[in-house]
Amino acid sequence: MTAALSPSPSQAARLQVRAGQWAKPTAGLAPGFAQANLAILPKALADDFLLFCQRNPRACPLLGVSDVGQPHIPALGADLDLRTDLPLYRVWRDGQLVQECADLHAVWRDDLVSFAIGCSFSFDELLLDQGIDVRHMACGCNVPMYRTNIPTAPAGRFAGPMVVSMRPMQAADAIRAVQITSRFPAVHGAPVHLGDPAEIGITDLAHPDYGDAVPVRPGELPVFWACGVTPQAAIAAAGIEFCITHAPGHMLVTDVKTLSLAAF
Amino acid sequence: MTAALSPSPSQAARLQVRAGQWAKPTAGLAPGFAQANLAILPKALADDFLLFCQRNPRACPLLGVSDVGQPHIPALGADLDLRTDLPLYRVWRDGQLVQECADLHAVWRDDLVSFAIGCSFSFDELLLDQGIDVRHMACGCNVPMYRTNIPTAPAGRFAGPMVVSMRPMQAADAIRAVQITSRFPAVHGAPVHLGDPAEIGITDLAHPDYGDAVPVRPGELPVFWACGVTPQAAIAAAGIEFCITHAPGHMLVTDVKTLSLAAF
Repeated sequence: MTAALSPSPSQAARLQVRAGQWAKPTAGLAPGFAQANLAILPKALADDFLLFCQRNPRACPLLGVSDVGQPHIPALGADLDLRTDLPLYRVWRDGQLVQECADLHAVWRDDLVSFAIGCSFSFDELLLDQGIDVRHMACGCNVPMYRTNIPTAPAGRFAGPMVVSMRPMQAADAIRAVQITSRFPAVHGAPVHLGDPAEIGITDLAHPDYGDAVPVRPGELPVFWACGVTPQAAIAAAGIEFCITHAPGHMLVTDVKTLSLAAF
Repeated sequence: MTAALSPSPSQAARLQVRAGQWAKPTAGLAPGFAQANLAILPKALADDFLLFCQRNPRACPLLGVSDVGQPHIPALGADLDLRTDLPLYRVWRDGQLVQECADLHAVWRDDLVSFAIGCSFSFDELLLDQGIDVRHMACGCNVPMYRTNIPTAPAGRFAGPMVVSMRPMQAADAIRAVQITSRFPAVHGAPVHLGDPAEIGITDLAHPDYGDAVPVRPGELPVFWACGVTPQAAIAAAGIEFCITHAPGHMLVTDVKTLSLAAF
């Protein structure tokens, strides 16, 4: 009799999701393992989307791309099944959200290509580990996100402004956060801006375009990172015929250790 | 009367090449500006090649990708013309080298996509600037390159072993070289191996698969970096119908400052 290998925390998390036993956002699930944004597109659009990601690596850092029709990205988890392993998906038709579901078997097609894109959940964890206050986590809400006037480099039908997430910090923490996140280009890397929001076309920090507002305290700088919502916004703006994404906060848990993504 | 803006050293270099006044390798041309490997493929193959580059970022770090049929990559140089701005090209048919030429107008097609891939000329310069002896530069020869047993992640028809370049160094310089090159993932980044060549399937340092052998002195370690010849080897191995590359050493000079490519 041989003992079965016990699954890693990330595998265990995916099995739990797959079995319908985790139907909520994945923040805090399998700490230390990278989570990913998901975008699934027909092959006819996937090539331009891959080019869009290549041209906008800060907003769309690719952790992996599937082969056509394959609901797997083995490099991110040998047993990973992209049709079942996220707690909630969004199905889009003609750029409109038409359905949320927890299983993609009914809508799966043989021409689909899946893109796993780095997610800032990973570096929030790293900042916290270094004693930096991550405001939206302290507040128990979603990170505030804003459309900017920073253009993305277009590719085919994909274009539009960069979306950024914002974390308010004391200057010393902002400097440390630049150092920490610079090590992780695969999860958006260094900030794209800090200080005056107007410089990147943000008029009111209290009214984010996505997510929740958080308080900015006296003496703090807002610090802005390129955000994984950028490709979703480009997908919606392009009004594309068919597309699947994760539902906000309901990410793909991978077997990749976040620390293994360090560039140095 | 208005004075014309004087061109940057990189623009001046391209104009010189375009005018047929520089018909030799580009090492030492426009110091401080990144040079690039070039691969030009029909659109029907370009999508898989883009995926191959995405899956093998150490060997194939993309600096830019053209739109279909466009012999320009504006982000790398506003006036850049990929048909004329390299001193020597290689034209491949069915995986075989069939022609070398200095102008692509006669073979250009409307379905071609061009890939500019980071080149280690850039970090050789950075190593030299820091006082590290770069053996092949001291010897005035080409860098030695070897096929390894490190597999690339395949994509469509593109596959094969990683090709590495080798620079022998004292341990202290090898450590410093890891630090310096880690800052530049866009030009292959940190080494993939150092020490025993057999560990990566290299049997004889004195007989490189590409380039020239260089002496390894007592007390030195061979240090190995992923090499831009990897995609050329994959292109040749795939026996693809039509493809254009730069001729070895005859690179694309871009307007991108190498130092601006630092990840941190």
